Amino acid sequence: MLGRIVIEDLRPSTPTRAYPAKGVAGEPIPVSATILKEGHDILAAAVRWRPAGTSKWSTAVMTLAGNDKWAGEIIPSKLGLIEFVVDSWTDHYASWRHHALAKAADGQAIEVELEELAVMLDAHSVNAGAKDSPAMKAAAVQLRDATSEASRRLEAGLAPNLEKLLTKNPYRTDLTTSDVALIWADRSIAARGAWYEMFPRSEGGLRPAVDRLAAIAKMGFDIVYLPPVHPIGETARKGKNNTLDAKPDDPGSPWAIGSKLGGHTALDPALGSLDDFEFFVKSAESLGMEVALDYALQCSPDHPWVKEHPEWFHQRPDGSIKYAENPPKKYQDIYPINFWPDQGREQLWNACKDILDFWIGKGVKIFRVDNPHTKPFAFWEWLIPAVQAEDPGVLFLAEAFTRPRVMAKLAEIGFTQSYTYFTWRTTAWELAEYLTEVALGPKADYMRTNFWPNTPDILSGPLRNGGPGAFKHRLVLAATMSPNYGMYSGYELMENIPASGKNEEYLNSEKYEIKTREWNSPDSLERYIERVNSIRRAHPAFKEIGKIHFHHSNNEHIIAYSKTSPGRDPELQTPPKFHDVMLMVVNLDEQPQETTLWLDMEAIGMPADQPYEAHDELTGAVYLWEGASAYIRLDPDVEPAHVFHLRRIG
Amino acid sequence: MLGRIVIEDLRPSTPTRAYPAKGVAGEPIPVSATILKEGHDILAAAVRWRPAGTSKWSTAVMTLAGNDKWAGEIIPSKLGLIEFVVDSWTDHYASWRHHALAKAADGQAIEVELEELAVMLDAHSVNAGAKDSPAMKAAAVQLRDATSEASRRLEAGLAPNLEKLLTKNPYRTDLTTSDVALIWADRSIAARGAWYEMFPRSEGGLRPAVDRLAAIAKMGFDIVYLPPVHPIGETARKGKNNTLDAKPDDPGSPWAIGSKLGGHTALDPALGSLDDFEFFVKSAESLGMEVALDYALQCSPDHPWVKEHPEWFHQRPDGSIKYAENPPKKYQDIYPINFWPDQGREQLWNACKDILDFWIGKGVKIFRVDNPHTKPFAFWEWLIPAVQAEDPGVLFLAEAFTRPRVMAKLAEIGFTQSYTYFTWRTTAWELAEYLTEVALGPKADYMRTNFWPNTPDILSGPLRNGGPGAFKHRLVLAATMSPNYGMYSGYELMENIPASGKNEEYLNSEKYEIKTREWNSPDSLERYIERVNSIRRAHPAFKEIGKIHFHHSNNEHIIAYSKTSPGRDPELQTPPKFHDVMLMVVNLDEQPQETTLWLDMEAIGMPADQPYEAHDELTGAVYLWEGASAYIRLDPDVEPAHVFHLRRIG
Repeated sequence: MLGRIVIEDLRPSTPTRAYPAKGVAGEPIPVSATILKEGHDILAAAVRWRPAGTSKWSTAVMTLAGNDKWAGEIIPSKLGLIEFVVDSWTDHYASWRHHALAKAADGQAIEVELEELAVMLDAHSVNAGAKDSPAMKAAAVQLRDATSEASRRLEAGLAPNLEKLLTKNPYRTDLTTSDVALIWADRSIAARGAWYEMFPRSEGGLRPAVDRLAAIAKMGFDIVYLPPVHPIGETARKGKNNTLDAKPDDPGSPWAIGSKLGGHTALDPALGSLDDFEFFVKSAESLGMEVALDYALQCSPDHPWVKEHPEWFHQRPDGSIKYAENPPKKYQDIYPINFWPDQGREQLWNACKDILDFWIGKGVKIFRVDNPHTKPFAFWEWLIPAVQAEDPGVLFLAEAFTRPRVMAKLAEIGFTQSYTYFTWRTTAWELAEYLTEVALGPKADYMRTNFWPNTPDILSGPLRNGGPGAFKHRLVLAATMSPNYGMYSGYELMENIPASGKNEEYLNSEKYEIKTREWNSPDSLERYIERVNSIRRAHPAFKEIGKIHFHHSNNEHIIAYSKTSPGRDPELQTPPKFHDVMLMVVNLDEQPQETTLWLDMEAIGMPADQPYEAHDELTGAVYLWEGASAYIRLDPDVEPAHVFHLRRIG
Repeated sequence: MLGRIVIEDLRPSTPTRAYPAKGVAGEPIPVSATILKEGHDILAAAVRWRPAGTSKWSTAVMTLAGNDKWAGEIIPSKLGLIEFVVDSWTDHYASWRHHALAKAADGQAIEVELEELAVMLDAHSVNAGAKDSPAMKAAAVQLRDATSEASRRLEAGLAPNLEKLLTKNPYRTDLTTSDVALIWADRSIAARGAWYEMFPRSEGGLRPAVDRLAAIAKMGFDIVYLPPVHPIGETARKGKNNTLDAKPDDPGSPWAIGSKLGGHTALDPALGSLDDFEFFVKSAESLGMEVALDYALQCSPDHPWVKEHPEWFHQRPDGSIKYAENPPKKYQDIYPINFWPDQGREQLWNACKDILDFWIGKGVKIFRVDNPHTKPFAFWEWLIPAVQAEDPGVLFLAEAFTRPRVMAKLAEIGFTQSYTYFTWRTTAWELAEYLTEVALGPKADYMRTNFWPNTPDILSGPLRNGGPGAFKHRLVLAATMSPNYGMYSGYELMENIPASGKNEEYLNSEKYEIKTREWNSPDSLERYIERVNSIRRAHPAFKEIGKIHFHHSNNEHIIAYSKTSPGRDPELQTPPKFHDVMLMVVNLDEQPQETTLWLDMEAIGMPADQPYEAHDELTGAVYLWEGASAYIRLDPDVEPAHVFHLRRIG
């Protein structure tokens, strides 16, 4: 049965509410709820939260933020699962006050109202301690003092001190508590970080790759992500450019995991030893970066599991094991795992978890999961909480480029972050529509985007044969739109040659060969990337995706959007309304373009009637603007984007 | 833990899924679900349903209707609560077929595929009866016959007969069933009907009012709704025009319920006897109409409950009972009920139910509930199912004009129908926006609209001092937009004089006085109303609100919208796509207006390349149209609206 008050729609939430929404430990999470009660009484509400399984609640006041909608903020104190509930009750005193004032203003008698407040004080004082009780009783006596004018007694009833006493010693006759809602509190790196993907074998192995880490750290990346580091199968090994006839010295695809040298818990000897691996991880750490590892649950025909556990694979009537295929395409170097074997499902799933446990033991806490949408949802629903129960700091990035509902479901059931369609959203209209969906829709409660302009599999859109303007503008978009973004190495060298027009592969893809690069090229974008990442770090406006707002540009080739962070400092709150206001203006074309922007002044919190400054953080240029209109010209050969910090003057 | 397949988002549904969505017994209800499985197997799905508490399921096939969205249809066989679930499983045969055909087309060997199908047949035949088993076994032998060409054996594997056998004798290794979803199946009058509100006292009582019923039936109404028929309080009785000094012969407001003559289960003697009441109900019934009664849970100070159960009211510290007030306004003739008394809550709630039981005993099955939003949600959540458990044919219309969330919540927890904001939506933009919300949003699953252009409390918008054009166009809008609509008597006589500019009351409101009307006025709209209701009844397009579609009109004073009913008859399905296509074009202004429409041809299913006919069902005129564009001129003094039946030619 419903309580006296209806409390529902707790946000953040997941669609089925069976899984937690997402937040960051130690950081404020805005929460909201719909609260309904019959009639016209004035309500009050609070949010309570605690780590799941503990007993002590923290509490924060909620305020009415619209039609029946209440808002507040919680701050999880530690990593892991947080429970929160919303309490609501009738604010009898506020209701009384509203009522009594209206009657008094109309000249109506308020004797009974004064007595009602006295009765309320009696009730509240029952549970008040020795400190407050006498003051409350005295106030009741004063309200009942028939020798005093009603208007004077009303004044006594409205005294701020009285309100404080009543709030401090509540008497909540219809206190109602919502169902419990869940939030998973992650490390902050789960919510914001810049990823860099590299193949250590192209550097000569893990030891030599350590030399590259300093440059990556200097560019401002937070996470170095390595494709699978395990022994690579020899059976049906792929040659250069995905050919079927590998030469003896072709290294094969790292995703064809497993050989006689070992499976998912072994290291490809070509990369070095496990000691080298740990040294690599520690070196990254000393540069302020974390290493993320690929978690690709598939096997080459040479993987030890194939012999040890043929029942974990799809067996065909002729006794063979089914390789991956999407007819007529065949992937004979890959055996998919059968996650629902007739025998030994539990053993298989535990073995999958053992892989993670092994690498966690080697210092890895972030996993980029290959094709999670080809493995059962029930598997992830079991695996991720099982790992995080032992270490809530372990994070999972879902590499699922599939149908929207499937991607959202993976995020819902536990993935920390998700690859997105950003890679294929290239026009202003597409970008605005997509960001509106992922940043401003209900998915934002649990699906954290990670924007990748390129990956080893995907050279797409303007990057194909694209010039510096294309590489710069896709970088600026990814880095300023999503708190998490990543690039695959070679981006800084503007590698741009497609394998063919039939797919989005790179020519001479690093997946199938060792790639030697001239990092010190004079054309390298390393310094540009460093600048962008440093702006990202400096500005709190980039911490959350949901603060994005699109502004009108009269040229469809130029997109304009702002990001803001609220002014938590009460002294900064009004004015200005925002603490940090960033405005990005990006030319998506390869030609110079110009536009007149029409800024939504409400969304950027700048004064409509006096000038303000636009500091281009990329170039250092400062413009003096006034009002909503601004002229912009962007030549991609010079600079395809502005990243403005808007500042009030004085 | 999740099943092997994820099945969720069952629709129709209510937001919390704790309450049933709404449908009509004996009529198809479209259902849908999101179904997700990892990888690329082809799925199948079915919906099963049964009356709650029974054991036999009905089943219907579902089909893929978009990205991971499946659709089907259920038909509740009886009134009351229906449970439904969605089953899904991998369609191994369809997956096999897709796979084998792609390989064969590429010239790849399919020997193992043929054996796989033979194995599948073995598995399916295990549970097949003596009738099908031999045929399945024979097919398996044929597939394995190495002396036959693979291509011939593939043909055998694709035989329609084989597919039928496999479907009939399923082998569903990953069969997954959704959670149970709920639908309340109502009588059809719950979903569509035309209401007429009248004060029988103005006709001289219930007996004389019977004479008026034939005219109401002739106008085409389905429900005659009576304001409270109980004894009216004398204390603080309101006089004409809501004055505080009633004259001795002022009859008082019927909503000030209860006097020494009785309370909610008594009949005002001025209206007649209980026999007269039953005669009135039976007379309406013989004319094909039902009587709806007001259910207003409030008391005059003279109500028997005030003496018998003072604890059921709000008692003040001075010993008085609190009358209704919204300071500075006072309603001293009304005592609100305290639904959470310190003592006797259960007794009070049961007494409230007894009122309904009493009138149900007198033949009333429809109740219009006065101000339900001022009574606890928990009360309605208890009351409505308690009544409907005894008689699932009892219906409740919520008269809540309050905040949107509160209105939706009342519908969610059990109200059959809801008054809406239609009364105040008067411009084309407002109407389109509001209909989009209530007809096309998720609320439509459980909140059935009832559109009222006027009520005894509300003379609003264009009706205030409005002419025949205003009364006609508001009628056409209400009647053609919402399957449920109603009018308060006097509408046909175009009563249009407001009490003042301060509120929306009528001058000389019938709430406070007896009103004698000249029904046979030559200006009466009775015949026009009859025409509109007869068109409503003749056209299935008006049966559901959700089939509305707005079309472009280049004059903002003219609104155009279509309603369609799907062609269930397979012969009619293609072409035409729709069985019944209605297009309404309404001039909302008091001046003549003209426009050029731009019709969405997809939405009306008319041919883009050949002429079609527009039959104006109001006037009988027929127009020959071609393409999307149509010129319209509407003079409100002649006819403010077209109600076109669009027909293909030949």
